[in-house]
Amino acid sequence: MGTAAAQNVFGVSAHFRGNSRNFTSKVDFSSVNFPCNWEFSRMTLFPSSASTSTSKSFGGRICCLPDAGDCFSDKIPTPILDTIENPMHLKNLSPKELKQLANDIRSELSYTMSKTQKPYKASLSVVELTVAIHHVFHAPVDKILWDVGEQTYAHKILTGRRSLMHTLRQTNGLSGYTSRSESEFDPFGAAHGCNSISAGLGMAVARDIKGKRDRVVAVISNETTMAGQLYEAMNNAGYLDSNMVVILNDSRHSLHPKLEEASTTPINALSSNLSKLQSSKFFRKLREVAKGFTKRIGKGMHEWAAKVDEYARGMVGPPGSTLFEELGLYYIGPVDGHNIEDLVCVLHEVASLDSMGPVLVHVITKVDQEVEDASHSDMPDEHQEGLCNSDSLPCNTRPQTYSDCFVDALIMEAKKDKDIVTVHAGMGMEPSLQLYQEKFPDRFFNVGMAEQHAVTFSAGLSCGGLKPFCIIPSALLQRAYDQVIHDVDCQKIPVRFVITSAGLVGSDGPAHCGAFDITFMSCLPNMIVMAPSDEVELVHMVATAALVNDRPVCLRYPRGAIVKMNNLLCNGVPLEVTVLCFLCLYHVFVML
Amino acid sequence: MGTAAAQNVFGVSAHFRGNSRNFTSKVDFSSVNFPCNWEFSRMTLFPSSASTSTSKSFGGRICCLPDAGDCFSDKIPTPILDTIENPMHLKNLSPKELKQLANDIRSELSYTMSKTQKPYKASLSVVELTVAIHHVFHAPVDKILWDVGEQTYAHKILTGRRSLMHTLRQTNGLSGYTSRSESEFDPFGAAHGCNSISAGLGMAVARDIKGKRDRVVAVISNETTMAGQLYEAMNNAGYLDSNMVVILNDSRHSLHPKLEEASTTPINALSSNLSKLQSSKFFRKLREVAKGFTKRIGKGMHEWAAKVDEYARGMVGPPGSTLFEELGLYYIGPVDGHNIEDLVCVLHEVASLDSMGPVLVHVITKVDQEVEDASHSDMPDEHQEGLCNSDSLPCNTRPQTYSDCFVDALIMEAKKDKDIVTVHAGMGMEPSLQLYQEKFPDRFFNVGMAEQHAVTFSAGLSCGGLKPFCIIPSALLQRAYDQVIHDVDCQKIPVRFVITSAGLVGSDGPAHCGAFDITFMSCLPNMIVMAPSDEVELVHMVATAALVNDRPVCLRYPRGAIVKMNNLLCNGVPLEVTVLCFLCLYHVFVML
Repeated sequence: MGTAAAQNVFGVSAHFRGNSRNFTSKVDFSSVNFPCNWEFSRMTLFPSSASTSTSKSFGGRICCLPDAGDCFSDKIPTPILDTIENPMHLKNLSPKELKQLANDIRSELSYTMSKTQKPYKASLSVVELTVAIHHVFHAPVDKILWDVGEQTYAHKILTGRRSLMHTLRQTNGLSGYTSRSESEFDPFGAAHGCNSISAGLGMAVARDIKGKRDRVVAVISNETTMAGQLYEAMNNAGYLDSNMVVILNDSRHSLHPKLEEASTTPINALSSNLSKLQSSKFFRKLREVAKGFTKRIGKGMHEWAAKVDEYARGMVGPPGSTLFEELGLYYIGPVDGHNIEDLVCVLHEVASLDSMGPVLVHVITKVDQEVEDASHSDMPDEHQEGLCNSDSLPCNTRPQTYSDCFVDALIMEAKKDKDIVTVHAGMGMEPSLQLYQEKFPDRFFNVGMAEQHAVTFSAGLSCGGLKPFCIIPSALLQRAYDQVIHDVDCQKIPVRFVITSAGLVGSDGPAHCGAFDITFMSCLPNMIVMAPSDEVELVHMVATAALVNDRPVCLRYPRGAIVKMNNLLCNGVPLEVTVLCFLCLYHVFVML
Repeated sequence: MGTAAAQNVFGVSAHFRGNSRNFTSKVDFSSVNFPCNWEFSRMTLFPSSASTSTSKSFGGRICCLPDAGDCFSDKIPTPILDTIENPMHLKNLSPKELKQLANDIRSELSYTMSKTQKPYKASLSVVELTVAIHHVFHAPVDKILWDVGEQTYAHKILTGRRSLMHTLRQTNGLSGYTSRSESEFDPFGAAHGCNSISAGLGMAVARDIKGKRDRVVAVISNETTMAGQLYEAMNNAGYLDSNMVVILNDSRHSLHPKLEEASTTPINALSSNLSKLQSSKFFRKLREVAKGFTKRIGKGMHEWAAKVDEYARGMVGPPGSTLFEELGLYYIGPVDGHNIEDLVCVLHEVASLDSMGPVLVHVITKVDQEVEDASHSDMPDEHQEGLCNSDSLPCNTRPQTYSDCFVDALIMEAKKDKDIVTVHAGMGMEPSLQLYQEKFPDRFFNVGMAEQHAVTFSAGLSCGGLKPFCIIPSALLQRAYDQVIHDVDCQKIPVRFVITSAGLVGSDGPAHCGAFDITFMSCLPNMIVMAPSDEVELVHMVATAALVNDRPVCLRYPRGAIVKMNNLLCNGVPLEVTVLCFLCLYHVFVML
């Protein structure tokens, strides 16, 4: 795997690794860095532009500045951002400049992303946090890991990928997530969420074994706090006690009622000062000394003192704070995620600590944080949500998808059979499912990123006499494979798996491609595997799944629009089981 | 699936469901119930004994009393246990009798299980808890779910399977775990651990939808508290707020340092009284009223009051108590798991509560709880550990296994290459791995039942420049399938997966059979799949795995002894990659 290094005008090397798609690029920062002096020779990522590159061996050439055409557009000037080509350039900025930089990034993001019609609201919420992290830590030597792809756009802008943001989630363009093959500033790929602490802990332990001193920062999101792997990782981090910083970006959109309730937690002067105190070297040293002192008195006393400390901080902190302490992480927070001075202060203290074990910094952000002086604030909401316009068309005009067909068929069956319930797991939710949720709110369970639980929970519902449809995207059903085998298939419990986003998934990228479900479901002894060839068969298969009540069933359908729908929704007719077997086998072979 | 009901002398029906192995049995409790009046017509489970049964349609006949030959053995009398054929018979026992019953069960377990040479120590620790649960709750109407198979033996004895305990984990015998096909008292199968809250929550929600009023009890163990699914389930239980009782059987063998540290938590009169107070109807109603009152004052105040309550209880409770509260479960404890009066009192209060949401009862038990007057207390420890003598032979005389060969080869490679580290996940650990752990304590990580974390953690170690071998049994690697795909294979990170217990696993039973790994690993684009045909190839493949450093590799080996080992451990020679590919394909086809 080749790496290329180019000296820019600041004398800073930037490395790009070639990715598996045989696209090896070079970062060239030879452009001058003020808004009026655009360099017009903007290169794209496509290999065909290789000839214009001055580099001998590498293809694409990436500039950090916008297109020539952008000069005369309605783009807001971004004076500070234009001086930043590498996180190194953030080091000497004053707090005021950092704040301006955050505004620049927000304005840049709104401008660029609104053109791509991809969701990006989540990335607006972490702009200050990203700036603060890159100001305090030294990427790529320090490893900065992200859990949620959509929150990495500011990170991408600051790490030499600014000029490519318009190619996000397009062929040969930037990945929608972090990607090791895209930049050395992305130390680990994150598309399925919830893996950053595990990977970060591995890097931290490897660093300790190798005797290095770099720092590891994992940014998790409250969207992923229902995923089990996070708890496994935190538990193990608390046990191994390696130095690492976990930052919880809490934008209060959790499914957890307690975190939801806590949205009123005041982030006032008290909590701000408290966070600074908690993170201060002196306070933490004091605490260690106190621990050592009480240790000598006796174990019971030591535990009591540690508890007084933990719960006292729990009392002033928001709900969830002691949860992390119980798992073995030192909790600091809450910190206002839009106050860059506070963030820098707390992160500086955390970064300067040695041998303190894992630390969790709780940062509160708002998803709808506005660009302070942006002219794009009146942009319609569906431009930012993404879920709704995944096919880049407004909701009301978008063509009917397989998901719509499935939900219509499911509603039809649910009207006939009161035992039908639906469990949904995974990131986000297909908009058509909201229709089902509105019609049957008591028979719909969205468990979020807890696929393992979703599958076993469905098995429990089935044991309780209901007929669960368990809806999980193909790529995330992998996360519950053992539950599918052990809790459902081996016990022959009738759960109906609905595998969405099966096969290729377009701009969602290779990490969400549902490539393996036919293989891993077909080898199970009791599972009926169904793959419809059109929307009419899909409707029949939903009826079949509702009927089969002695074994598990799964059916898969792709992302995207149907081909030949003629607005005639026939009633689903259950397929004969013998016909079904042949049909399934046939389709499996056809699709293979 | 047929069910049979038989009237016993108490007039109580007991049902057995036929299991998938076409073994449909009938519980016949026609024997008299005092130790001296043995009925000698003991039937086995085998269909051939059907002719001796008085039943018209069903095969086997199961008696609850021991063999005739046992009359004159060294068996300790079990007067109370002999009167129990069904949990219903526990209802009218006095606390003293319940205590005697627990002793009877412990003595019975020690007697029967020592003959089978299967591990059973874990089940001794929950005898009182099992008795208390069956005294208070009404199985099979109330659903009692277990997380850990080895803790269900007392439950099996009390639910009509006493006479079959000697067939445990044998062909056509009782399962080592709970099994829906074995008894209606087992509402869900548990072999992989950590699924009971998810399944129980499903049953609780189904009950609510169906308007029933039965109760759901899930018994989890601290062995499974590092598994992520548990947190997903508790989080969702806290959110859905369905009535269910989770009992944490804490025998202090957790990998979590805080729980380990807490082994000195005093379970004295104070904590006993406190648990009773916490669980009392009056106290919980008072709390609800207080909540309602403060709710009216204002949200901030309400949260504050709830916190004061939560943390105040956290202060007196052991570490971990607020963790559960944060996840949304009402915490009660700690309760002495060997004090049957306390257990019954607390469970009675919990059972009598309505609409209080999920409750967690923290029960402290000792694994080495002795039989009070048993004569078998001097039994050697290896008879009880199981891990060591999984082949039913003492450690020193047991034949060399594939696992031994692998560990020898790994040690050899690790001596040559200081970057080699080992991560182990899953229940228990193969004894031969201890040899590696002793030699390289700093390069060995046992993360317990956190397979998802283990895989991503290994990927992180690899990113940090080390060469991780990630050792997971085949059946449990299923739990980390998404991590194998997304965090390792798709990113082409060199992690070496060592898949143990591949293929059939003998008395470990079908739930631990490693049937699917070849299929689900072979379909991944970057993975090299290796399956040695003998121990010499195994050694070479370990050397190959150590060498391949540009992509993930996996190798699998079965449970059990090697065939033709001649005590000559050759040095592993890495296979040529081209040869390797052919070899792999060949072996995959041969094994399929």
